Amino acid sequence: MLAIGTELLLGQIVDTNSAWIGEQLAASGVDSHEHRQVGDNLPRMVAALRELLRDSDAVIVCGGLGPTQDDVTREAIAEVMGVGLERHHDLVEHIAAMFSSRSRDMPENNLRQADVPAGGGVIPNPMGTAPGLVCEIDGKAVYAVPGVPYEMQAMVQSFVIPDLLQRSGEASAIVSRSLKTWGTSESGLSEMIANHVDAQTNPTIAFLARGIEGLVVRLTAKAATEADAWALIEPVERELRTILGDLVFGVDDETMEHAVIARLEARGLTLGVAESLTGGLIGARIASVPGASRVFRGTIGAYSSDVKRTVLGVTAASVVSEECVKQMAEGAQRVLGADVGIAVTGVAGPDEQDGQPVGTVWLGLAVPGAPTEAISTRLPGDRERIRQFSTISLMNLLRMRLDALA
Amino acid sequence: MLAIGTELLLGQIVDTNSAWIGEQLAASGVDSHEHRQVGDNLPRMVAALRELLRDSDAVIVCGGLGPTQDDVTREAIAEVMGVGLERHHDLVEHIAAMFSSRSRDMPENNLRQADVPAGGGVIPNPMGTAPGLVCEIDGKAVYAVPGVPYEMQAMVQSFVIPDLLQRSGEASAIVSRSLKTWGTSESGLSEMIANHVDAQTNPTIAFLARGIEGLVVRLTAKAATEADAWALIEPVERELRTILGDLVFGVDDETMEHAVIARLEARGLTLGVAESLTGGLIGARIASVPGASRVFRGTIGAYSSDVKRTVLGVTAASVVSEECVKQMAEGAQRVLGADVGIAVTGVAGPDEQDGQPVGTVWLGLAVPGAPTEAISTRLPGDRERIRQFSTISLMNLLRMRLDALA
Repeated sequence: MLAIGTELLLGQIVDTNSAWIGEQLAASGVDSHEHRQVGDNLPRMVAALRELLRDSDAVIVCGGLGPTQDDVTREAIAEVMGVGLERHHDLVEHIAAMFSSRSRDMPENNLRQADVPAGGGVIPNPMGTAPGLVCEIDGKAVYAVPGVPYEMQAMVQSFVIPDLLQRSGEASAIVSRSLKTWGTSESGLSEMIANHVDAQTNPTIAFLARGIEGLVVRLTAKAATEADAWALIEPVERELRTILGDLVFGVDDETMEHAVIARLEARGLTLGVAESLTGGLIGARIASVPGASRVFRGTIGAYSSDVKRTVLGVTAASVVSEECVKQMAEGAQRVLGADVGIAVTGVAGPDEQDGQPVGTVWLGLAVPGAPTEAISTRLPGDRERIRQFSTISLMNLLRMRLDALA
Repeated sequence: MLAIGTELLLGQIVDTNSAWIGEQLAASGVDSHEHRQVGDNLPRMVAALRELLRDSDAVIVCGGLGPTQDDVTREAIAEVMGVGLERHHDLVEHIAAMFSSRSRDMPENNLRQADVPAGGGVIPNPMGTAPGLVCEIDGKAVYAVPGVPYEMQAMVQSFVIPDLLQRSGEASAIVSRSLKTWGTSESGLSEMIANHVDAQTNPTIAFLARGIEGLVVRLTAKAATEADAWALIEPVERELRTILGDLVFGVDDETMEHAVIARLEARGLTLGVAESLTGGLIGARIASVPGASRVFRGTIGAYSSDVKRTVLGVTAASVVSEECVKQMAEGAQRVLGADVGIAVTGVAGPDEQDGQPVGTVWLGLAVPGAPTEAISTRLPGDRERIRQFSTISLMNLLRMRLDALA
């Protein structure tokens, strides 16, 4: 991987593109030996490209395909190939069409994006003006993709990885399934399924730590066709799900808020939230999912003790207590007109409150036809981490209880 | 920069360390030519280190100083120096003391962290067991720092950058001031102060784009002492502030929520929020600041139209309208018992609502002794971006109005 951009060296941007591509390559069984970042500097780009080609079978160059004079990835590849640049007229038309569809004038500079090293090929860019490039140098492949993440991602998935796999003679279909878990540690998870991990080669099983979002168990299978690859994954996934049980809250791109919304919707229940130390974070995450309005009524961010009393009807003496969190959950049900009420109160720090230490958190849950429940927990870390942990812990509690209702 | 770790290549971790160090180097006037990431692989680390030393005056190696057999940064540096490793007994004692202070047994492997390439020096690590290294190779410097961010950051600030500056013969004091702005585009900002940027060499003036958090104008001055450096910054900062006016919402680490809270506190006013499409995000950001409880009453995340009516008392026919956002702001004031009420409603998408297109957003503001105000805006981007943009736009509106009150 070679990422281009002086702003990367200056730390103005973090190079998330290389990490993303690295993850895709790993999932496809392609070893990634080195990532580099250099500035918008032609001689340094040429030198880096030569060294990477010396040590690898293929290089993906990310960035430097824009329209300005700073963008010299095309020139760098042409120089390493020992050829000139040729202007492609179909690309000129594509770029002109992109501008006119947005009713904007096309600066002359943008035509530089129609230049291709002689003998090189083009990777189409349906999402922007800069096409990608695919070039051969001494039998090795150089791909150039834009630095704009969604344009880059579309090209890598639709073109670069299939092309790499075809060149390597690997099985052409690779699929993966991520089981997203919450509720145990990496070592706990590893103990549960260690013998499966070691025994499995196709699909392979990998752990990915996602911080506050939990741990992911990823199965990756290779086969001649996608259907064959899924057929390899399916029995192993079933076996792992039996072992992991309700630790698994979703698959692939599903977040905890997706899991909660899907379960509420399936049961025809609406949700109201009352939150203290999180200040609105739980409502914000739930509302981030398109279609949340079918189940989500709203949240009361009752940050001051006064608001807990006047708006939610809390009468408990201490606002960090079992009684308080239960009254908050029931208040959310009643005030927001929701079937299910959830609530959190606690001490995010930096100072203790009501004689309770930082990290003390109460989670509350009111569901129809059952006594209101309160759970006490002690969360580690600083203010931000305690707030984030409280948020996902409360959503996870709701998920587990909704599953138990079914 | 050479960052070590197979997990970086696999994309399991994004290399934020290199970006952070790059930013510190830039602020200190040190040019950074290349960043690299390689796996925990001795031959590749040795080859990378040799190439980087060939092309640079100094190399910072980050990671690979842990206690396991995978951690071979010490070995790689020793190999490039052509020397062996020596065990330092004072380091053995430091490591043993760290373990016994935490009442934990010390695995034998941890003593590897007391090994230093012969002739190399040690950078103390007050925050962990792994010391850093500083070694000379053909008159060039190699620094090794741990991959744990807070340990790395402490070493880079206290040792690496001062040492680099001393070796380069540069002025030993470098200070910088960031003016954080909101409300104009990069090209707009650039037009306002372009002639200053070009004319200035000490302090230098740089633009940093921070996405949804706005644009930063950073002044960096070098001088013999810190006081001299600040004296260079002070008149230029004053001049820029005159030009930029109320675009500047804070300096250095201050966020928009800090700016809002400080202004409320200075005026002895409390705040209540009513939010629709943001679902609690505004409350969550304001509550993220320690001490927010002195001014922040809470937020009503009135996601469903019903809750806008029952809890906030909205009677407007359309929930995406001037009348609605005004009633929400006044409802926040009344229901939350706050001096100032702010509100947002609009269409985050993916679908239009009440015949209004995606991106339509109303901001509302109710302050004591003035008519309630509503502002309509049209925000670009996807659902997440519209929600984030709404959040900072509403906080910025509040900031501007509070300044006008003073």
